[in-house]
Amino acid sequence: MAYSVLVTGGARSGKSRIAEARCLEFGAPAVYIATAQAHDDEMRARIAEHQARRGPEWRTISAPVELAAALAESDGAPRLVDCLTLWLSNLMLAGHDWRAAGEELIAVLATQVSPVVLVSNEVGMGIVPENALARAFRDAAGLINQWVAQDAQEVIFAVSGLPLKVK
Amino acid sequence: MAYSVLVTGGARSGKSRIAEARCLEFGAPAVYIATAQAHDDEMRARIAEHQARRGPEWRTISAPVELAAALAESDGAPRLVDCLTLWLSNLMLAGHDWRAAGEELIAVLATQVSPVVLVSNEVGMGIVPENALARAFRDAAGLINQWVAQDAQEVIFAVSGLPLKVK
Amino acid sequence: MAYSVLVTGGARSGKSRIAEARCLEFGAPAVYIATAQAHDDEMRARIAEHQARRGPEWRTISAPVELAAALAESDGAPRLVDCLTLWLSNLMLAGHDWRAAGEELIAVLATQVSPVVLVSNEVGMGIVPENALARAFRDAAGLINQWVAQDAQEVIFAVSGLPLKVK
Repeated sequence: MAYSVLVTGGARSGKSRIAEARCLEFGAPAVYIATAQAHDDEMRARIAEHQARRGPEWRTISAPVELAAALAESDGAPRLVDCLTLWLSNLMLAGHDWRAAGEELIAVLATQVSPVVLVSNEVGMGIVPENALARAFRDAAGLINQWVAQDAQEVIFAVSGLPLKVK
Repeated sequence: MAYSVLVTGGARSGKSRIAEARCLEFGAPAVYIATAQAHDDEMRARIAEHQARRGPEWRTISAPVELAAALAESDGAPRLVDCLTLWLSNLMLAGHDWRAAGEELIAVLATQVSPVVLVSNEVGMGIVPENALARAFRDAAGLINQWVAQDAQEVIFAVSGLPLKVK
Repeated sequence: MAYSVLVTGGARSGKSRIAEARCLEFGAPAVYIATAQAHDDEMRARIAEHQARRGPEWRTISAPVELAAALAESDGAPRLVDCLTLWLSNLMLAGHDWRAAGEELIAVLATQVSPVVLVSNEVGMGIVPENALARAFRDAAGLINQWVAQDAQEVIFAVSGLPLKVK
């Protein structure tokens, strides 16, 4: 039976660390499904920092867009998806239908045998952005979080590096 | 005795859905007090989407500015105010004294016989806006939330569509 | 044995009021360690408002940058640091090494005999800022919050003026 965990929170709230620890509780080795694309130095530095923290218990898969396929192919070990927000950003920048991709993700999650921990970002608690694209993005990010949270067995809100149990 | 519920959260956090369900628990038909003004297509689309989700259990009143009066006139059935943040925005754009309007709201809420569920937005958890008006708005929004929460019997923080009980 | 409390939350979430009440529970008179600098009228008005709310139970120290020293020198009474986010901003604007200052803060907190309550801001739950400096600031603010929260005995997340216990 499918088991998924959503870990959400703001920037630098300790989401990834909480999610990594939770994922390894399900067993090791685990699979790290990275959605980040190294477009620039800032992002490359952040990816390198995340990789350095993870040890040999992890096998890394890159899935900037084809997340549902990566999940389907990697079933059999606990998976960590880090993160949904970058995946959504990649989808929208590439002109994909993010609603269809989100529905496909939910459908694939429901069929997984091994647990999946998904990291996501809270981006909707600031002032309404003046930029229409930024508004569309934060609306989509909020909806994706709701869809994943609805089916998840656990939902954790990270505050200052600490887990606050929501579900 | 007055009974009010505040449902707060970020954009697309499922606030309205949680608030609608809580309101109907108090009884039906209920009154939906809409503070949105359909200035542009984006807002019209959002209002239409919200209306389509609500069924025949709801009677809708529009109160973009005169919220206290709308509450006083509609007492006798459960009310849902959606949302305080748009109401505050309408007040400030029209040059009204939002502090006086906020105090009037609190005073009217204290006299209501039927329950009132109020939806509000978290807008103060991003980077400090460079725009002075945006800073004034987020300060006012935070204070209105505090005033309503102080007198409320229940306060719910919506995270990824799920309710987190604060009070 | 050192005892510290972190109170975090968005703008106008009632953080300072919650932190002041918690600090006075440890005893009075208490020491208010202010990190704000009165650069402009808006900030002067906010500082004056905060001071007017505090009564004679407080002695005020100004420490816009030298926070660790101010803590070391004021040990012997409960202290309230308001707030870490402005302190970090002062550090970064003055070109200081904020990581070293953060580590120094954590080390000094561990040696305090009297309790310390620290106020901080959530700034990472909005859309990713376009400005690189703003991104660096919100990353640093998030890390400082994590460091302080990890060693704290209590962590409180303020929502609409109400405390949500995280630790």
